[in-house]
This record gives sequence, structure tokens and C-alpha cells, in this order.
Amino acid sequence: MEEAKGLVKHVLLVRFKDDTTPDQIEELIKGFANLVNLVPPMKSFHWGRDVSIENVHQGFTHVFETTFESTEGIAEYLPHPAHVEFSKRFLPRLEKVLVVDFKPTTVHA
Amino acid sequence: MEEAKGLVKHVLLVRFKDDTTPDQIEELIKGFANLVNLVPPMKSFHWGRDVSIENVHQGFTHVFETTFESTEGIAEYLPHPAHVEFSKRFLPRLEKVLVVDFKPTTVHA
Repeated sequence: MEEAKGLVKHVLLVRFKDDTTPDQIEELIKGFANLVNLVPPMKSFHWGRDVSIENVHQGFTHVFETTFESTEGIAEYLPHPAHVEFSKRFLPRLEKVLVVDFKPTTVHA
Repeated sequence: MEEAKGLVKHVLLVRFKDDTTPDQIEELIKGFANLVNLVPPMKSFHWGRDVSIENVHQGFTHVFETTFESTEGIAEYLPHPAHVEFSKRFLPRLEKVLVVDFKPTTVHA
């Protein structure tokens, strides 16, 4: 099993509060994406709506997957002023949130 | 915002039952990885232990991220005999599981 060297994926699952408008969600997604330009160790940003059909999503509706150069990079990101500022707008709009970080590892089966 | 053409990520968060041994976990990870060889629309497999420091992982300890060529590919995978057979070994070892699927979309901010 091989770990990608250093690379860490930072995955957020969220459900927005019911009274959050589509425009507000779009603005928040753009703000989240823009952190790639502001926080050096943050390397990429992708998002998507949950489209699963197994019904074990536990109510989460959106996925945000960002990539960092290392776990130290995530430790730098969390208290970064740009992230703190964004979180002040983002977190109050969330009904629920779950975060996991992992070093993507392959298996030669 | 651009969706990657067709590509869908299938993300499982799990927590193994406490009495699951490291050897059992390794065997299950290898079995999961081997599905890439058995289920044509399944294109890649990565896994990793949760290493997040924010403590909002809700008890999940392992992440499995697989990639499919389309949502139809996931619909083909779920009832595929190789997946059904693997699930019979995998699911009884899980304390909890959460699944989301999403089409990774980029934002040009």
C-alpha cells in the first residue's frame, strides 16, 4: 500500500440550513474556492452535490474536497486569517458538518 | 463552475467494530481495492485513515474514495456480484458507515 507523498485530502460534508438561498450557497462555494488563492498550502478545491442512491448519506447534501501539501499545511490553514474570515460566513449557514482528512493510499491488488 | 465530464466520486466513511483486528482490516481493504479489477465502471480506489485535528469526524476512522465513470456506473456497481460478495464480508465488520457520491466540480474564483 503506497501513500501519495505528503498529499492530504481534506473532506467536508455539509448540509446547509433550510433557509439558505441558492444564491447564498453559490457565494459561499465561490468564497471557499477562493481560499486556494489565499492560503499557500491549499492546492486544489472541488465540490459537488450528493447524488448517491444508497440513502446512507445521513442528511449531508454537499461535499467539499480540498487538497493540501501535508498535514502541517492543514494545521496552517485552519487558523489562517482568510479561512477564519470565510468560516465566519460559512459555519452559520450550516445545519451540520463533518470533516475528515486522509492521505490517499493505493493498493496493488 | 465546471463539472468533470461524467466522473463521479463515491466516498465511504466507516468506523470498524472495535473487535476487528488489523489483519482483518487489511484483508478488507485489499478486497475493496480488488473490486477495481472486477467491476468495469470502477476506475480507481484510494483509502486512508482519518488524520483530522478538528474533531468533527463524528467517530469515522477510515475513508474509502473510489471513482466511477458515471452515476450509471455506480448503479451498475452496487448490485454487481463482486460488490455484493465483498459487502457480505465488509458490512458486518462496520460499526458505522456513511456514503456520498459527487461529481467533482471546479470553480474559477
